[in-house]
Amino acid sequence: MPAIDLNSDLGESYGAWRMGDDAAMLAVVSSANIACGFHAGDPSGIYKTVKAAADRGVVIGAHVSYPDRVGFGRRDMDVTSEELIADVIYQIGALKGLAAAAGTSVPYVKPHGALYNRIANDPRQGQAVIDAIKAIDPALVLMGLANAPILDLAAKAGLKVVAEAFADRAYTPKGELVSRREAGAMLHDAQEIADRMVQLARSGTLQAIDGSVINIEAQSICVHGDSPGAVTIAETIRERFEAEGIDVSSFTKAG
Amino acid sequence: MPAIDLNSDLGESYGAWRMGDDAAMLAVVSSANIACGFHAGDPSGIYKTVKAAADRGVVIGAHVSYPDRVGFGRRDMDVTSEELIADVIYQIGALKGLAAAAGTSVPYVKPHGALYNRIANDPRQGQAVIDAIKAIDPALVLMGLANAPILDLAAKAGLKVVAEAFADRAYTPKGELVSRREAGAMLHDAQEIADRMVQLARSGTLQAIDGSVINIEAQSICVHGDSPGAVTIAETIRERFEAEGIDVSSFTKAG
Amino acid sequence: MPAIDLNSDLGESYGAWRMGDDAAMLAVVSSANIACGFHAGDPSGIYKTVKAAADRGVVIGAHVSYPDRVGFGRRDMDVTSEELIADVIYQIGALKGLAAAAGTSVPYVKPHGALYNRIANDPRQGQAVIDAIKAIDPALVLMGLANAPILDLAAKAGLKVVAEAFADRAYTPKGELVSRREAGAMLHDAQEIADRMVQLARSGTLQAIDGSVINIEAQSICVHGDSPGAVTIAETIRERFEAEGIDVSSFTKAG
Amino acid sequence: MPAIDLNSDLGESYGAWRMGDDAAMLAVVSSANIACGFHAGDPSGIYKTVKAAADRGVVIGAHVSYPDRVGFGRRDMDVTSEELIADVIYQIGALKGLAAAAGTSVPYVKPHGALYNRIANDPRQGQAVIDAIKAIDPALVLMGLANAPILDLAAKAGLKVVAEAFADRAYTPKGELVSRREAGAMLHDAQEIADRMVQLARSGTLQAIDGSVINIEAQSICVHGDSPGAVTIAETIRERFEAEGIDVSSFTKAG
Repeated sequence: MPAIDLNSDLGESYGAWRMGDDAAMLAVVSSANIACGFHAGDPSGIYKTVKAAADRGVVIGAHVSYPDRVGFGRRDMDVTSEELIADVIYQIGALKGLAAAAGTSVPYVKPHGALYNRIANDPRQGQAVIDAIKAIDPALVLMGLANAPILDLAAKAGLKVVAEAFADRAYTPKGELVSRREAGAMLHDAQEIADRMVQLARSGTLQAIDGSVINIEAQSICVHGDSPGAVTIAETIRERFEAEGIDVSSFTKAG
Repeated sequence: MPAIDLNSDLGESYGAWRMGDDAAMLAVVSSANIACGFHAGDPSGIYKTVKAAADRGVVIGAHVSYPDRVGFGRRDMDVTSEELIADVIYQIGALKGLAAAAGTSVPYVKPHGALYNRIANDPRQGQAVIDAIKAIDPALVLMGLANAPILDLAAKAGLKVVAEAFADRAYTPKGELVSRREAGAMLHDAQEIADRMVQLARSGTLQAIDGSVINIEAQSICVHGDSPGAVTIAETIRERFEAEGIDVSSFTKAG
Repeated sequence: MPAIDLNSDLGESYGAWRMGDDAAMLAVVSSANIACGFHAGDPSGIYKTVKAAADRGVVIGAHVSYPDRVGFGRRDMDVTSEELIADVIYQIGALKGLAAAAGTSVPYVKPHGALYNRIANDPRQGQAVIDAIKAIDPALVLMGLANAPILDLAAKAGLKVVAEAFADRAYTPKGELVSRREAGAMLHDAQEIADRMVQLARSGTLQAIDGSVINIEAQSICVHGDSPGAVTIAETIRERFEAEGIDVSSFTKAG
Repeated sequence: MPAIDLNSDLGESYGAWRMGDDAAMLAVVSSANIACGFHAGDPSGIYKTVKAAADRGVVIGAHVSYPDRVGFGRRDMDVTSEELIADVIYQIGALKGLAAAAGTSVPYVKPHGALYNRIANDPRQGQAVIDAIKAIDPALVLMGLANAPILDLAAKAGLKVVAEAFADRAYTPKGELVSRREAGAMLHDAQEIADRMVQLARSGTLQAIDGSVINIEAQSICVHGDSPGAVTIAETIRERFEAEGIDVSSFTKAG
């Protein structure tokens, strides 16, 4: 039976502000990338999401970010390696603490937003994230963008890595994401997206934006839950996977 | 050979701002209460202090606070129990992460500033701190004010507790701290303070502000390092203890 | 023609997080209490709301708060008078700057949340707010709770004051708000609320929770917009006022 | 009698953390670039510095920054123009408010740290700063790096500009600052620095790092006060200017 992981960004509320529908998404995904307080999430909100994920058996990852709450971690920042290493350890540690208190654990790390994009191709900041993970817990898995250099860098450094594809994004013939500035970069049709994800889960291939068929080696698929439309797409993928006999389960449970 | 713990607040720099002389104090104390980012400390500064403490063999405690950096955690806040529990777990977890990365651990917790004073006598907030500690790691020791109700509350809840005395403070005949608003509350003479601490370490007694002799059961003595004068007092106590054959060592190493 | 002011709390989004429906509420109210960044609001979000208020001809007030974003300014804090004075001036100044840039001005101040409740009856913190207002701009009007001592304190200090009533709250026979912890404190029926507000605008009276009729001298009515139900109540009041020939206009335009 | 402005960065303490010796520097400079809370400064600390500057007759500028307190505004950030415009207006407004409360005003703006360096050559972010200044108060003067494109950009947009030279920095033959990464970039000898500044004030020339003489058109000289050595350099320059009959006075007082 084919299996794949579904992951989503959760715990992104902050204080009195709500974001996303964590309860709905926890019914869909097998892995929850949970904000650690630097771009989103306050301790009591994070703790609630951690407990809800534990209740649903959803695996937890640390969604670490640059320290930029007002910019939601989406603005590139020229941090030093020393700062980045400590920031990443701090965030993972905080989430591990909340997870331990909720009777669960944090087996993986997924950088967020601008940091995610930056380290995909920047070996200095990428190495800092790798060093941080190895320092706090070398058993942690790093989740990153399929086909991005960071995954090789991390694997060579001895980390386990998981590659992810984005359900609602178009790909270039080279297997890279089509820039959001270009037409057709974002996919909106839930059925079409589900079709594509079934193909990806079964054959490891996707149709690129030019119609060619490309290989995407991804052990996880990222789905979003930050709007009602996004939740519907995620739910449609999940339902299709169940109908097609594709097991949705965390990569930590892969054989 | 009599033994006692010396503790001090460290890691209180923040970003470009320096506070205290962590290097000097790590040569004096056996326990370092390290800021966790809520009243002071940024990740890279905390990490440096954690590593320095590990290098010196100084035991690390989580110096948890209300979320009030601009007020240095010194302003009373009406937080809910739910908020306080999550805030305390988050801070302990973050420091545990940095400690693990530095090859050491966090065996105790000491609340800071307004939180320290509040929980000494407020059973609701005190219980929240206790619940947080038990949730993340029930082996953690809670350090608190000698003779304060919080220590009984924590002990009844199953936590190990350590009582501390303040080297530079006068005590009432009832064994409470003389309020800083009253004359004579603060002691400044290093030799007099060292004399008092030798008496405390040897006999568990102190002379109260009215001249009477009181019992203070304290396994640790808090010394400050936030001014050159404070460092001198701390060093004088340490030297006197060594001259008098009183072993300065962490309460975690007590028989 | 009778006239009354309608005010509401706006500009409470923060970064990527939305709160309230500012556009809908700007069509209802004559005065907008705009967050200044301490409990809610980031500069670019505040600036948008300021510009939208200016476009609609809605008068702007500075909704100043304790520095507690994660607690939304709802947690009581023991700030010093010196801190509070500077915090209030800073926030008013920041909003005045954004208002000037948008071609408008800030004629009044309304403290938010825990600060609003605290100063209603705490003369020390109340005096600090008054001192701050007089220092930055003595022509600023202070909006406060009808029948609260702060209004007398401010008036004696030479400030112009405006008293407000809360549309969706029950009142005691003494003219105070029924505590939210008691049954019946919150009113939910839009038509009933509109009936009460018409009576208030016409006669300066309301029916208290025990059925007695009380005097409430209020020049402004506070309505909320933080939920679809709250927006509906506000719109219903506005429509009823227009149908009854009650002019909704800022107290700054009163004769 | 020749005249020149001396400026320095002040108000950079934060909460319980001290930075620099504002009192000493206010005796030296004619212009104080005062932190506005984004990289440094809390309202009560800023207010104290504003009042002290007013007492000494020192002119106040808004030292605006990226929102990065933990990085002291020294880390480049990819902010949008919309964010930057609002952030700059907010900071200027806040400082104007504190200045008004202290009976003084804010006649100029000097961007800080990474923002200062970025806009020197980045026309998009530079234009955003210009737009912000024009929106809040077009009479504000922009202080910037001598010979940098931002000054032309601002002048063409109708702003008054002031160029500044750095007392303790070496210059290239092209009149640019020698990068701090290169040997000899920083000057440390107070007498040599004072000699250079007398030459600059008298003739508008400096000796570049290669020995050639270059023109630096600067109406202001930036001196630092963040270390005892820096304060000594600043005081030496001031004393030398007085001995040489060079008037130290704000550019706002230039004929």
